Amino acid sequence: MPAPIEFYFDFSSPYGYLAATRIDALAARHGRSVNWHPILLGAVFKVTGGVPLASIPLKGTYSERDMARSARLIGVPFKLPSKFPIPTQAAARVTLWVQGADPQGAKALALALYRAYFAEDRDISDAETCADVAARCGYERARALAAVNDAGVKDRLRVEVDAAIARGVFGSPYFIVDDEPFWGADRLDQVDRWLATGGW
Amino acid sequence: MPAPIEFYFDFSSPYGYLAATRIDALAARHGRSVNWHPILLGAVFKVTGGVPLASIPLKGTYSERDMARSARLIGVPFKLPSKFPIPTQAAARVTLWVQGADPQGAKALALALYRAYFAEDRDISDAETCADVAARCGYERARALAAVNDAGVKDRLRVEVDAAIARGVFGSPYFIVDDEPFWGADRLDQVDRWLATGGW
Repeated sequence: MPAPIEFYFDFSSPYGYLAATRIDALAARHGRSVNWHPILLGAVFKVTGGVPLASIPLKGTYSERDMARSARLIGVPFKLPSKFPIPTQAAARVTLWVQGADPQGAKALALALYRAYFAEDRDISDAETCADVAARCGYERARALAAVNDAGVKDRLRVEVDAAIARGVFGSPYFIVDDEPFWGADRLDQVDRWLATGGW
Repeated sequence: MPAPIEFYFDFSSPYGYLAATRIDALAARHGRSVNWHPILLGAVFKVTGGVPLASIPLKGTYSERDMARSARLIGVPFKLPSKFPIPTQAAARVTLWVQGADPQGAKALALALYRAYFAEDRDISDAETCADVAARCGYERARALAAVNDAGVKDRLRVEVDAAIARGVFGSPYFIVDDEPFWGADRLDQVDRWLATGGW
């Protein structure tokens, strides 16, 4: 069995959303599976000195245009949320809670959370909203809500984020394919080619 | 005549180098010409708060790998220069000096300067090196050297950089196609498609 692709993303990352809609199908074409890792860019930015895209003069304005254009190009519904960016602890924790028992279900939930935020303008920084989305995906609402404040789930997210930083992850989306790192939804073409050729 | 593509680049930008090797051929396939604009990212970063890639924890290390990998993918010789990044006033001024009389010649010179820096590890922050490259391209060495300190050429570069910032340019490479902005060598596929379709 070839190694799975490691896929790191933050729920407030538009390009993470675009990549999330594509990475599993891309990997499957090469007989690969994908491990999804929700991370917190806020924690990463403390290490890198990064700041949210939207806050950067000129680049912020351009990015809004580029996000929408890149989404249209691949036919993914996208609307810049009225609150952007947002803290993503709640969404990440609910996802990790599901992932423990049901990794495939966690991917469907992550995509539903991304769509709620980037297509339906629902504020997924709110635990109640995350619980609603989880309920829509078939999970028990009260348990999903409790997971957001569960000490074990919180710890697991901290461990995941620390492990990501230790592997060099500094942005979203970020992919590792057989130890080769790729950053950005616009590197999916290279990921595709890397999987096809084994590298160049 | 359709409008030319505006192409902004800094001589210390590896992705600017990669784009410079491709943009004219890409544009020509769509019957377009390209106006080349050397700019100074240092001046841009004063507006955006940006910092050189190489200085960013985690991202800097990744970038070195990505630059080399992206260059290999398109068959362009690349070696991270021993001094990187560098101030690029000298290279930009010599290019603008040639551009005044010979826009096509200025492109050939810009490519030669880029190759000198990113393929041959020559320090093009040095006016003497820029003059050597200009001489190799058929320009009079002494006049090229004088252009680096010519008040009129200096003014022209300042005007170019201010105009770029006023148009929203915040990085390198940056393209404007019929008022649509694209940032990054990894947006050349979108530029290509935009030119083919008129947008989406």
